[in-house]
Amino acid sequence: MNYTAGDIARHIEGELLGDAALVLHEVSSIEAAREGSLVFAENDTYFRKAEASQASCIIVPRTQGSSQKTLIRVDAPRLAFAKALTLYHQPKTATPGVHPSSVLGEHVHLGSMISIGPFVVIGDRVRIGDRAVIGPGCVIGDDCAIGASAVLQPHVTLYDHTRIGSRVLIHAGAVIGSDGFGFTRDNGQHVKIPQIGNVIIEDDVEVGANVTVDRATLGSTVIRRGVKIDNLVQIGHNVTIGEDSLLVAHTGIGGSSTLGRGCILGGQVGVGDYVTLQDGVMVGPQSGIPSRKEIRSGETVLGSPARPIQKTKRQLAALGQLPDLLTEVSRLRKVVDGIQARLEERT
Amino acid sequence: MNYTAGDIARHIEGELLGDAALVLHEVSSIEAAREGSLVFAENDTYFRKAEASQASCIIVPRTQGSSQKTLIRVDAPRLAFAKALTLYHQPKTATPGVHPSSVLGEHVHLGSMISIGPFVVIGDRVRIGDRAVIGPGCVIGDDCAIGASAVLQPHVTLYDHTRIGSRVLIHAGAVIGSDGFGFTRDNGQHVKIPQIGNVIIEDDVEVGANVTVDRATLGSTVIRRGVKIDNLVQIGHNVTIGEDSLLVAHTGIGGSSTLGRGCILGGQVGVGDYVTLQDGVMVGPQSGIPSRKEIRSGETVLGSPARPIQKTKRQLAALGQLPDLLTEVSRLRKVVDGIQARLEERT
Amino acid sequence: MNYTAGDIARHIEGELLGDAALVLHEVSSIEAAREGSLVFAENDTYFRKAEASQASCIIVPRTQGSSQKTLIRVDAPRLAFAKALTLYHQPKTATPGVHPSSVLGEHVHLGSMISIGPFVVIGDRVRIGDRAVIGPGCVIGDDCAIGASAVLQPHVTLYDHTRIGSRVLIHAGAVIGSDGFGFTRDNGQHVKIPQIGNVIIEDDVEVGANVTVDRATLGSTVIRRGVKIDNLVQIGHNVTIGEDSLLVAHTGIGGSSTLGRGCILGGQVGVGDYVTLQDGVMVGPQSGIPSRKEIRSGETVLGSPARPIQKTKRQLAALGQLPDLLTEVSRLRKVVDGIQARLEERT
Repeated sequence: MNYTAGDIARHIEGELLGDAALVLHEVSSIEAAREGSLVFAENDTYFRKAEASQASCIIVPRTQGSSQKTLIRVDAPRLAFAKALTLYHQPKTATPGVHPSSVLGEHVHLGSMISIGPFVVIGDRVRIGDRAVIGPGCVIGDDCAIGASAVLQPHVTLYDHTRIGSRVLIHAGAVIGSDGFGFTRDNGQHVKIPQIGNVIIEDDVEVGANVTVDRATLGSTVIRRGVKIDNLVQIGHNVTIGEDSLLVAHTGIGGSSTLGRGCILGGQVGVGDYVTLQDGVMVGPQSGIPSRKEIRSGETVLGSPARPIQKTKRQLAALGQLPDLLTEVSRLRKVVDGIQARLEERT
Repeated sequence: MNYTAGDIARHIEGELLGDAALVLHEVSSIEAAREGSLVFAENDTYFRKAEASQASCIIVPRTQGSSQKTLIRVDAPRLAFAKALTLYHQPKTATPGVHPSSVLGEHVHLGSMISIGPFVVIGDRVRIGDRAVIGPGCVIGDDCAIGASAVLQPHVTLYDHTRIGSRVLIHAGAVIGSDGFGFTRDNGQHVKIPQIGNVIIEDDVEVGANVTVDRATLGSTVIRRGVKIDNLVQIGHNVTIGEDSLLVAHTGIGGSSTLGRGCILGGQVGVGDYVTLQDGVMVGPQSGIPSRKEIRSGETVLGSPARPIQKTKRQLAALGQLPDLLTEVSRLRKVVDGIQARLEERT
Repeated sequence: MNYTAGDIARHIEGELLGDAALVLHEVSSIEAAREGSLVFAENDTYFRKAEASQASCIIVPRTQGSSQKTLIRVDAPRLAFAKALTLYHQPKTATPGVHPSSVLGEHVHLGSMISIGPFVVIGDRVRIGDRAVIGPGCVIGDDCAIGASAVLQPHVTLYDHTRIGSRVLIHAGAVIGSDGFGFTRDNGQHVKIPQIGNVIIEDDVEVGANVTVDRATLGSTVIRRGVKIDNLVQIGHNVTIGEDSLLVAHTGIGGSSTLGRGCILGGQVGVGDYVTLQDGVMVGPQSGIPSRKEIRSGETVLGSPARPIQKTKRQLAALGQLPDLLTEVSRLRKVVDGIQARLEERT
């Protein structure tokens, strides 16, 4: 599909500087840009690269001056770029229908325009909303509910009683509702505590590939609206993740922990059990939050165990000086011993 | 199902204080308790919360005094709670039978009362014990053996020659018997070392969702009786995990390492190659055990690299004082230099 | 299959010392060796164990002296062992053919001698090379290409437009081409940046079980020839991994990072976004490389954040001395205070 620079400017609500009739064939990275490419440049460095490229049109911040190339000035270039990308690359629409190979349980309620791929297994009393897409090989347990326009990529497993909101996107291989890791001792052996709760995923959540979310022991593990979860993340039983939080790959959240709204956890973060992260807490990559810890709203922490980021950075800097400090103290000790000896001599 | 407080007390071998005829509708968390709920309280904090809740009956330690509410005093409240939960929530029993869509190889031996779900693929010469449940979409390689009452959730893959004990529970997406990560160099390129061993999982093991366990290069990777493995754990080739050990999520065990009985590894622990953890070793979360290291029986270690926990804690505390120490030493140096100058002056 | 020591020596291009007619029934570990076993010993420790074992023949380095047992001297014992193993254990060949249950899209091009297992789903315009094996339950998206002799184990998912080279081996549950983790803010909520690129995996790559590789936002995520990826590794969007690099389990690579040829990353390594590791960089286990960092060719780094390994080791050693240092400085301060007091007194 081709659009003109004028079309694009209108679509992304930008101010056009240059040729409104310019035909743009594609959205591109600056590196791969050709004549007819639309690119974006968030800052001066990228703007210089974009100007030097073959691109025909650049999405830029409002503050950007003029250029030889056609520009579109916007408030948020990255957001505008996402909108332009969506314009050129409409998401593939699945053909509605239920593949004849799929196995459906009793009392299943299917909305309109849904698509169920080959080799899907759906349990009893499952409800699937309008326009939902269930990819090949998915397994949906009994009593699950899937919201309108939700998309499950291949090989997703939902255990019994899982509830998925509208417009949720779950990537391939994710497992939602597996048993929480709960055991108690009896004569040195581990006795399983039955895990009879469920998982609730609210609207507009994205769950990465091969993610695992455990069901609650009692009650629900809850992923609130707008949360985005990267690949291979683990979420324990009875956890609540607040609205619009982001969890980067390989992060693990222990049992009964609660994250507020808008938290951001870097990659490979470990959160213990019964932890509270209040709204807007940011946790640097590979950090560890010990069990039962509470981090206050808006704090940024780093390290294992995690501390306020400035403290951890000061400690890391100090650690770099530690080998020299050891030498220095050893020298000082000799000097002081020498002084003492001289003073003793005199008295 | 409803039970009376008297029924429950008998079932969990507890001492009843209060109304034996009291009808209990459900087991509940303290937060969600209503009239007719049974809850448990391991300590005073939870007991006070339980007393203030709507719960009708509380499972408590033997030492607990009396209450307005009906109490059941037991030796181990958490264990008793697990037993009560099991009473109310009998595990769902799969309907016996082999789904017609499933594909079975030659010389497969199926025990009685087994359940094989849709789209299961079973190789040649596989033996499946009585009452075993193979969930939808599982793939069982040639020459595998699965014990009585074992349960494989959906999408589990067993590579050829895997042996699974009785009452083993494997969660969705787990991969058992994939190739060990073994390569050797030839002219700068990696040549694969064939991985011709297998995996043996003994009785009463639980394996989490999307866990991976590699087959041995030669011989067997062995998970001994009663081991519990959390989600997304990786176990390398030729590893042995001792009886009743617990491995928390995202932990990885390198090739040829051996864990004794009753080891507990926190989340995101990394164990190198050829490591030995003797019986009862505990490893704190995010710790790292370097290759070829041996940790003695009963030790608790923490850190990367891991050290005895007291040592690591002392180091972490000292690290917190390091920035101030740098300032202090700098001050001391000036004082000492001043003293020296004065002494030089006098002589 | 049985071979003589002479057969083996010829096959692995070694020098035979002993009985060329000796019949060898199997390749074995030293621990499990019996009469008729062939083992290998890379160094003196293993050689002594091998000599004390029941093994009949030992593969040894060229420098090894004579023995009671038959020896085969080679340049690279581990490589020779891999070759001998391959001789005894030819990889199982899949029966060619397409299982009738599988669902193929339109315009699919299948090479000769390919094998497609049960419950496989293949999209439109897919090309599969000669002798490729697609295991049970794999899902191949539209417009994918799979090279000759590639093997996909069960439950592998390839999203649309993924390209896989020749002789690539992908283990069970791996997900290739899921969306990159790319969002931008709009009024505090996360807006998805469409991920319209793809993944290219070149020849002779091995991908572990439950690995995830994200597609590029624009362009391609590229895994170059000969790369070996262990289980549960995560590779972000727009990453390039250079030829013959090794990534150990649970390692995560952030978006737009580039690894050169022959890099080796230990287990649980975290690499941020826009990182450059030049050729031959080695990263110790559990290390973290901060975003936008560049590590120069041939460097070995360790720690979180990673530093040159010698520096990190010196810091770790110094950290061990830190608690004593605190005591020492406190003592020194008192001594210095004492000296000062005496000097003040005198003046």
